[in-house]
Amino acid sequence: MPDRAVDRIRTGFLGPTGTWAEEALLACVKCGSGEKVALPSVYDVIAAVAAGDVDEGIVPMENAIEGSVSATLDVLAFEFDNVHIIREIVYPIRHRLIMRKSMEFGDVKRIISHPHAHAQCRKFLRESLPHAEVVAANSTADAVRMVSETDEAWAAIGSAVAAERYGCIAMDIDIEDYADNQTRFVLLSTSPAAQDQDGSYKTSIVCTIAHDQPGSLLQILQEFAHRYVNLTKIESRPSKKGLGDYVFFIDMEGRKDDPQVASALKCLECKLSRVKLLGSYPAG
Amino acid sequence: MPDRAVDRIRTGFLGPTGTWAEEALLACVKCGSGEKVALPSVYDVIAAVAAGDVDEGIVPMENAIEGSVSATLDVLAFEFDNVHIIREIVYPIRHRLIMRKSMEFGDVKRIISHPHAHAQCRKFLRESLPHAEVVAANSTADAVRMVSETDEAWAAIGSAVAAERYGCIAMDIDIEDYADNQTRFVLLSTSPAAQDQDGSYKTSIVCTIAHDQPGSLLQILQEFAHRYVNLTKIESRPSKKGLGDYVFFIDMEGRKDDPQVASALKCLECKLSRVKLLGSYPAG
Repeated sequence: MPDRAVDRIRTGFLGPTGTWAEEALLACVKCGSGEKVALPSVYDVIAAVAAGDVDEGIVPMENAIEGSVSATLDVLAFEFDNVHIIREIVYPIRHRLIMRKSMEFGDVKRIISHPHAHAQCRKFLRESLPHAEVVAANSTADAVRMVSETDEAWAAIGSAVAAERYGCIAMDIDIEDYADNQTRFVLLSTSPAAQDQDGSYKTSIVCTIAHDQPGSLLQILQEFAHRYVNLTKIESRPSKKGLGDYVFFIDMEGRKDDPQVASALKCLECKLSRVKLLGSYPAG
Repeated sequence: MPDRAVDRIRTGFLGPTGTWAEEALLACVKCGSGEKVALPSVYDVIAAVAAGDVDEGIVPMENAIEGSVSATLDVLAFEFDNVHIIREIVYPIRHRLIMRKSMEFGDVKRIISHPHAHAQCRKFLRESLPHAEVVAANSTADAVRMVSETDEAWAAIGSAVAAERYGCIAMDIDIEDYADNQTRFVLLSTSPAAQDQDGSYKTSIVCTIAHDQPGSLLQILQEFAHRYVNLTKIESRPSKKGLGDYVFFIDMEGRKDDPQVASALKCLECKLSRVKLLGSYPAG
């Protein structure tokens, strides 16, 4: 496989400029250094990768406080079959309360952000801004942009970088409900990741289990355990076919072609109605 | 244990009047027929039960499309230790687009609802109302109330009952992304459920697994499998201690004192750093 011409790669991210996704992308020394393309939603980023409108795309998978990003998982599992995870990027998240000009918490009428950012700051909002209207923006940066363009008593939740970029003030306190907040982003492409890069890899799959097989998850885990394949994450999501019917997202250590991983995946495919490989990629 | 004086029980629900939680509560023939107390958030409902301000409370646990209600799971797992699940209530959800007066989709400037309702209608919003501002309300009914009180071109996502209650128009189409939408609610109390009622029971626990024990989930599942205890749900959530560190919510068939269930729970408590019983209650 030829080297990627990294300076010509177009990478889609949740925009506008100033989102955590863009910060994570800029901090990733192994990501493409070409054009960054701001897109309006996680769905649009994944769809643009699938359609070839961009070469790569970065989306959030999981946050240390609020958990998985269901919009990302559902689109990867159910909507596109030609998109692969090619890299994992773990980035620290320090949310700030952002205003156009300084005001008291009690005067804030509206608090704008992405719903996942609101959820990461649930306690702060409950205790410090109980009367503010909670308004969803497409991204944290879009929230900051909205605040920068109004004279209303609005505040946003976003990054210090976004505050600076839109000429706003970031309060100097972390407002997440728990310390050590991080988000795990993934880079997507229609070309699977090369399997010959240095360092450790992860492999991600999504498994569909038939409704009337309550022991299936145990069987899945046993396939990995007796081959000493370490799982780093297991997450259930609704299959959308009714309550009690789930798909399981599983991340494991190793490359898809490692003999033990390959053997486990092959046996899973025999047992289950559907096993979809989401990617085998360098770990963050 | 004496019979509950069901006509004197005060039950908290996510208000105002017209929420899905209230509808589920009114449809539950075995729930208390006393006073219904509207509260402003899921957190407030659980806190009111814990503080004894109400006798019981109803909260959403899980939706067939969007999955678990993280605000409920996190509060039950991490914030109160004296609240027990005493009953499960499964209720069909048919979201409607609700307006004060009829207008074209293209004219809707703002679409208000609870974030979980927005997420259940993600495709509909993307395709039919891409330009509307998405605004979070504390509940679907509160969204309908806000629409009923304005001349602005706002619409809400909520129930047909809420539309009628607030004098609004409900469009006659289901706007969920998938059919057969249901939400599983639970009834909470500081007194555990009596274990002698007829019918099938479920038992719910939350387990904390040490970060460096990747095989722990397998061990947990084996405790249940070799005793033939059927699990109806397994859900991971962040422990809030950092990426890769999870707690597991597990629902199983049976009563906590059934010999096989009791034996499995006892062995789990020996193995894990923490096992919290959320309740053992009649299944919905």
